[in-house]
Order: sequence, then structure tokens, then C-alpha cells
Amino acid sequence: MTQVTHAISPTRAENYPDWYQQVVKSADLAESSPVRGCMVIKPWGYAIWENIQRVLDGMFKETGHVNAYFPLFIPISFLEKEAQHVEGFAKECAVVTHHRLEAGPNGTLVPAGELEEPLIVRPTSEMIIGASFAQWVQSWRDLPLLINQWANVVRWEMRTRLFLRTAEFLWQEGHTAHATADEAIEETRQMLDVYTKFAREWMAMPVIPGEKTAAERFPGAVTTYTIEAMMQDRKALQAGTSHFLGQNFSKAQEIRYQSKSGGLEYAWTTSWGVSTRLVGALIMTHSDDDGLILPPRLAPKHVVIIPIWRKEAEAEEVLAYCAQLAKEIAATTAMGEPVRVQVDKRDMNGGERVWDQIKKGVPIRLEVGPRDLAKDSVFMGRRDKTPKDKRGMTRVEFLAEVGGILQEIQDTLYERALGFRDAATVDVADEAAFFAYFEDEAESGFARCFAADDPAYAEKLKEIKVTARCIPVEDNDETGTCIFTGATGVRRAIFARAY
Amino acid sequence: MTQVTHAISPTRAENYPDWYQQVVKSADLAESSPVRGCMVIKPWGYAIWENIQRVLDGMFKETGHVNAYFPLFIPISFLEKEAQHVEGFAKECAVVTHHRLEAGPNGTLVPAGELEEPLIVRPTSEMIIGASFAQWVQSWRDLPLLINQWANVVRWEMRTRLFLRTAEFLWQEGHTAHATADEAIEETRQMLDVYTKFAREWMAMPVIPGEKTAAERFPGAVTTYTIEAMMQDRKALQAGTSHFLGQNFSKAQEIRYQSKSGGLEYAWTTSWGVSTRLVGALIMTHSDDDGLILPPRLAPKHVVIIPIWRKEAEAEEVLAYCAQLAKEIAATTAMGEPVRVQVDKRDMNGGERVWDQIKKGVPIRLEVGPRDLAKDSVFMGRRDKTPKDKRGMTRVEFLAEVGGILQEIQDTLYERALGFRDAATVDVADEAAFFAYFEDEAESGFARCFAADDPAYAEKLKEIKVTARCIPVEDNDETGTCIFTGATGVRRAIFARAY
Repeated sequence: MTQVTHAISPTRAENYPDWYQQVVKSADLAESSPVRGCMVIKPWGYAIWENIQRVLDGMFKETGHVNAYFPLFIPISFLEKEAQHVEGFAKECAVVTHHRLEAGPNGTLVPAGELEEPLIVRPTSEMIIGASFAQWVQSWRDLPLLINQWANVVRWEMRTRLFLRTAEFLWQEGHTAHATADEAIEETRQMLDVYTKFAREWMAMPVIPGEKTAAERFPGAVTTYTIEAMMQDRKALQAGTSHFLGQNFSKAQEIRYQSKSGGLEYAWTTSWGVSTRLVGALIMTHSDDDGLILPPRLAPKHVVIIPIWRKEAEAEEVLAYCAQLAKEIAATTAMGEPVRVQVDKRDMNGGERVWDQIKKGVPIRLEVGPRDLAKDSVFMGRRDKTPKDKRGMTRVEFLAEVGGILQEIQDTLYERALGFRDAATVDVADEAAFFAYFEDEAESGFARCFAADDPAYAEKLKEIKVTARCIPVEDNDETGTCIFTGATGVRRAIFARAY
Repeated sequence: MTQVTHAISPTRAENYPDWYQQVVKSADLAESSPVRGCMVIKPWGYAIWENIQRVLDGMFKETGHVNAYFPLFIPISFLEKEAQHVEGFAKECAVVTHHRLEAGPNGTLVPAGELEEPLIVRPTSEMIIGASFAQWVQSWRDLPLLINQWANVVRWEMRTRLFLRTAEFLWQEGHTAHATADEAIEETRQMLDVYTKFAREWMAMPVIPGEKTAAERFPGAVTTYTIEAMMQDRKALQAGTSHFLGQNFSKAQEIRYQSKSGGLEYAWTTSWGVSTRLVGALIMTHSDDDGLILPPRLAPKHVVIIPIWRKEAEAEEVLAYCAQLAKEIAATTAMGEPVRVQVDKRDMNGGERVWDQIKKGVPIRLEVGPRDLAKDSVFMGRRDKTPKDKRGMTRVEFLAEVGGILQEIQDTLYERALGFRDAATVDVADEAAFFAYFEDEAESGFARCFAADDPAYAEKLKEIKVTARCIPVEDNDETGTCIFTGATGVRRAIFARAY
């Protein structure tokens, strides 16, 4: 029997959380910082986020939104206005109380210049953006107001995990105001669709779009929509949310407009966001025991060329060939974009560079040595296949096929993740089957069943750390009897343990 | 005599600072927020910043830099490490001392959960990025390290002015580490060149790149380079800086590497940045008494089409014509980019929309009414000309010429600003002439003279609020005798009152 060794230790099967940390580390994506709870997003990780930003920003603009920027700080008096909202965020916010430092004992610095009113660092911006909206919205002519912000936010977290849960993270937050409830609900659903499309088509992540139950709603929202993804440990991860806020925030903040008929009406608002958590979702959806696997559409580089030579005399010719090849590859396209290519000529031996690029998740690796050059060919490895599964191709063949191969990898990753999720999803018909399913923590994934949106059974679920993830909005018209409460006419919901 | 009226009141001549505020307001660029010292950047203003970001980001990447992201917070103990640096920033930083809020008297919230070590909100990131660099740099193979960050920073300011000076602002900060002093100096100069090129070619702003005198250096830097621009009130504005930090920060932060010969060496570091202040510079360089004027390369929209109709029956046909025209314009290019076009069909009368777009600074306005449509033509106004100076053109002519017209506007703005600066710059031969020149605050601009980099005469200049802006790096080889100290062999420097 052959012993299969892997680049990542422990493997997913051995210890999933540690495997995750090792994938992040070995792909050089991010690291903990000396500032408690905050991460440093390293260039390779940040480049993935830049791709996410670029694509989403385009989708937001196509749907009529514009970007703006609002203050980092929120006076605490603003927070006092929306009771549920405060409840949700007061326990985890960074508070600024002073505005300078002065010399303390033994060369230390101590806070000075106490503020009259403390400020919190935004955990989300409903309260500060709402204050602007209250000024900007005067007449029905000012509506709809369709704003997005790319920003950093802070939610004080004690137990942090790179990308998944950190005190500071990067995100986008859309905030919109509308004249009618229907328009606001339509906006909420539209952005859920945008997130769903992005997750499926760019991240190759088969998400389930759905509505949150009351217990899982955003503090202050009337309805929260979510996209839920399954990670490879079968746990759910909430990857994005879109909230219909009704008039809760417009009433707390006096966002009112004069209607066509002359009356003074409260606006209807929404908010929606995704964050750097998506990078964590990406990692946990596709990566394997050799490290990161990137869906081509979000990979900072599609192709890495690894020139290999033994004698110094060979180097010049190999490097020149690779440089020329890189130019030719950059002139091709894949999935509507120019192919992103890089030559890895770092001062490390060939095998080390190959393994480093495997761990970094680059979709296609091309090894080029003197013998390949002589045949005008390349040696190609695909990240969706095993590291040893490589294929010789002529340069001309590769240039003709690279776009198609990248598309194929993108599709394979999606299908693989979908297959995994489907295999780990069961329909349960009654409460006994439900609890039996979740008994084995390692084997249970998503359970689907008829369930009322009712807090009555929440305690029982809490004991086994299972939550309602969502009531799917797709293919979910059939109604039945709630397996927990016996209520009739309810739709199916998805339950799981979650991040 | 005709009374000329203007859209902006007061005019530049009447009250320059108030004119600036009115231009910002009437172009809907930004506004003060309820949070002291912080601004809200509104969509039109933010779109200019997005263009600045996009272009600069491309230039940074072309020169080999990659983006990353570092924590918002810096433990105060980090700040204690570099004495000059602390001195520069301790007096103006937001200090986080608590990590949650709890219920206080009468429904208020009060800070709770005091931190063991207070954190400051980054005023700049040398100290926190340096901590990462100390980990990342181990061997000469790890150098150079070429990192950029797009981020928000906070410097507590009491007297604020939108874009020019606010407590929170957006910027980019490049941070690099090198094996030798020469390489680091070359990097510092390279980024000065990047900023100079960007200011001249994209912002149409004729800047003077130069070296700061010792008194004007960044706290902790060995050399600071700057690009200095002249505003229309003849004051100087520092628009970007590039610092050679020597080994000051690497010693404070232990950024050391093993050299090829096996020794342990301190790295040589640089930092460089521009901020949303550039938007302020843009406004004050080009705008006139009718409002904002945008250089086409950074304008969010190049062309705005304003459909005009009297009777409702005409509307449909005019709107359809404009929509088709917009498509055709979007298919043309100007200065290497697709032309950005918008149809302004807001529910306001035609004249109001025209004036609104003038105040917003859109380079080209096209008015299209039923009569124009009948002739298959447009009525074109250019923002670099007076509002009444409009020209009828056929649609076909316009489509053929639009790229050229935008290039012409870009060039005109640059030439105009350069002419203004040259007319407001004098060479002074001795100290008496120098002080005589600066006597009239309203009429004095840049004075150029031989001057030593010597603090001896700083006090005298301080009294008249004049500072050395820079020792130009272009066309400045000639040496002479310092007009203040009599020192010989010194180069010319530029002096001015400044923002």
C-alpha cells in the first residue's frame, strides 16, 4: 500500500479547525496581529478580497447603487435611539474616550483630553448613515436613495479566527431608503439575488438563499435574508445578509419625506452586507489536504509558470522562454477576463516552488525546464486534480485550451461542493429523526424539515447547538406540519450547526 | 454694461475660503457630519476618489507593489518606541479605552470593560506595519518588501475643512523595506515620480516635486519628498509625500535580515502617501465662480445629456433619442478609456439641470430638445468655457470629436493652472525683496530663492506665516548664496504660505 502524504498537517479528517489555520498560514493569506482580535491580511489574501470587491462593486453599480463614505465614529447617544439595535451591539464595541496622549511615568504614554461624549467605533453604520439620510431625504424626488459603503468595522470579539471572526474586519454595507414597503422589500430581495449569484458563479459556492427565523434576525430588522453555505466539516456558514428594516430605523432617526400627495411619510429602509468572512468561506468550501484551492474567477493569478533549471547556463534560455510564454498567456481570456499569469522565479528549488504554489491554490501550474523548452511544450498541473496528476502539452495547445481549462476548474469546484452538500443534507420527517440526525456531531450536516418560525422549540435546539439557518426562498412552496410544534401550513427550513 | 452673475456666492475674489465651502456644497461632494471633525463623502465626491484610487492603484502595481491590510488599532506601547514619531502624533490621536457599553442612568449608555492597554486609532501605520515587517523580513531573499494599504486614518483636528483637514480621512500608505540605503532612496524617488506624473497627467495639476527642509520633514524621516501645488488663492498645498526613513524605524522595530554574507543587518525603509486631500486640491486648482470644474480623466462622468421638453407628448421621443445617443457615446473612447456618460432625466426643469451639472463640474453637457432631435444634433457646453458659450453640432460630428474635446479640456485645465502658477511665482534675490514680496497676503504666491536648509531663519518666516515648501528636484542644479544666512553653495527653494 502506498502511503499518501499531504502538504497540510493535520488533515481535514484529523482536525478540521487546525487544518483551516494551517491552510491560511501555508497559503500566506493572513495572520494574527499583536493587536488583540485584529488580523493582518497579507498580500495573497488581500488580492482575493480585491477580486471580491471588484466584482461585487460592479454588480452593485449595475443595480443602480453608488458608493459613499461615512464616519468611523458614532456618538453613543446615536446608539440609544434604536433599542433592539443597541442590545445587539453594545456588548462588543470599541469605545473612544480620549483624543490625545501625554507623558506618563517612566516614559509611558497615558490617555488625555477626555471627550465630552464618548464615541464608539462603528460595528455597523445604520445609526450614522441614517443621520445623513434624515438630512438627504426631504421629498419623494429624493427616493430611492441607493448607497453602498466599503469600510472597516469593529465588533469586539474575544475568541477570534482569521477571516471568520475578528474584532476588526472589512466589509461593504449597502443602505437604501424607499418610498414604499414594497420597493424596500424588492430591494432586499434583489440584493439577496446579487449575493446568491456572486457566491455561485464567482466563488463556486452553492449557497442556499433564504429567510432567517425571528431568533436569527439582525437587531432591528423586520426580515433578514441570508445566503447559507456548507463548509467541509458540514457546518453552515452565513455568507451574506440582506435586511428589510421596515420603518424601525426611519422612525428612530426621523427619515421622513414629503409624498406626492403632500403628506409627511417615514421612509422604508434596507441594509445588506458581506465581509472578509467570504474569504474564510472560500477556503473552507474548496481547499483540500494540500492547501488552498481557489476558484479561477477569484484567483489573484490563474496561471503560475515555474521555470526549472539545473545548470546556471540553462537559466537564461528557460527564463526568456517563460517570459515570452507569460506574455502570450496574458493575451488570452477566460470567462470574460484576461488570464492573470505570473512567473515564479524565486530563489528556491523547483520542487519547493511547485509545492508553494499548490498550497497557495493557483488553478494552473506550468513547469518549464530545458527539455520542455526543446519540445516547445509545458508540463501542466491543475489544482482541482492531485499534485502528481500532470500533463505534457505543447505551448500552442495550452494557449488554445487555457480559457476552457479554467472554466472547467471553476465548474468542477462548484459541482464538487454541491455534491458534498447534497450528500450531507437529509430530509427529516419528525422530531425524533431530527434529534437522531444531529447526535453524531461529525457526521451531521443540514437537516431539512417543515418548521414553524416559533421560539417555542429554540431551547431544545440550543442544547444540541443547532440553529435554524434559513427558510429557503427557492423551491420551497410546499407546506406541511411543523415537526416541533405541530403547527400546520408551514414551509421547510434548514437546520445545522454553524460558524 | 452687462452684470455678470455667478452660480457660486461668494466668488473667489470676494472670499476664497467661503467660495471653497460653497463649491463643495453645490457640487454635492461632501458635508460635515454630526461627529466632530469627521466628514461624510457624498457619492459625487466619493466617485472622484474612486477614480483617483483606481489610477494610483494601477500605478503602484505596475511598479511592483502589492496591497495588504493592517489593524486599525495600535497599542500605545508601540508608539513609545520611536521618539520623534510619538512627538508628531501623540497630541492628536483618538484613544480607545473600553470595549463595551453598559446601561447608565436615565437610559444612557456608559463605557465599560476597561482595556489593560489603551489603543490608539492609527494616525499612520509605520509602527503597526513595522511590527509585521519585523516578522516577515528574515533573509535578504525577503527583500525588497513592497506593500501598500488603502485605509482610513484619524488625526484629531479641532479646526476642520472638508477634504483639506478632517479628523478622519481616507488615504493610501505605501511601506517598503530594502536591503540597502540606495535602493530605499530610489524607491522614495520612484514614488515621488509616480505622484508627480499622476498629479500632472490625471489631475491636470502642475505640481513641483521637491525635498522638504528639515523643519518640514515627517516625524522620524531622514528625507521627505513632496509634491507642492498652488491653489487659486496662491497658497501652497502639499499634495503627497514620500519619505526615506533610513534605519530609524527598522531599529525601533527590529526589522533585521540576514545578508548574503551571513551578517545581521537592519533594513532600510520608506513610506509614502496621498489622501482624500487630493480632492480638495483638485477643487481649488480648477474650479471657478460657477462651481466645480473636473479634469476629464478623473470626472465620474465625462458627458451628461440633458433631455429637454415642454409638452409631455415630446418626452418619449426626446428620452429615446438621448438613451440611444448615450449608448453611442459610451462606445467611444477618450484618453484611453471608454467615455463615461449619463442621461440626467431628473424631475426638474431643463435650466435647473443644466446649472446643477455646471456646478458639479461635468466636462461636457449636451442639451437635447425636440428641435435638436429634428436636426439630429446636440447643443454642447464645455465646462472649461463660460456657461453661455455653447455650440450646436450634429450627432455624428459630436461622436467623432468627443474624445478630442475631452483631451482638449484636460490640456486646457493644465495649461491654465500652470499659467496661473507661473504668473504668481517670483524669483527673489535678497532678504528684503523676500519680505517685501510676502507683505501683501492676497497677492503673494511662490517665492523662489537660494536658501540653506537651516533652522536659523525659521522664526522670522514663522512671523509672516511663510514656510519653505520644498527644494525642487527638477531644473534646480544651480547653486548660490543663501539669502537668509549667507551660506554658499546652496540650491533654490520655494517659499509660500500654505494649507
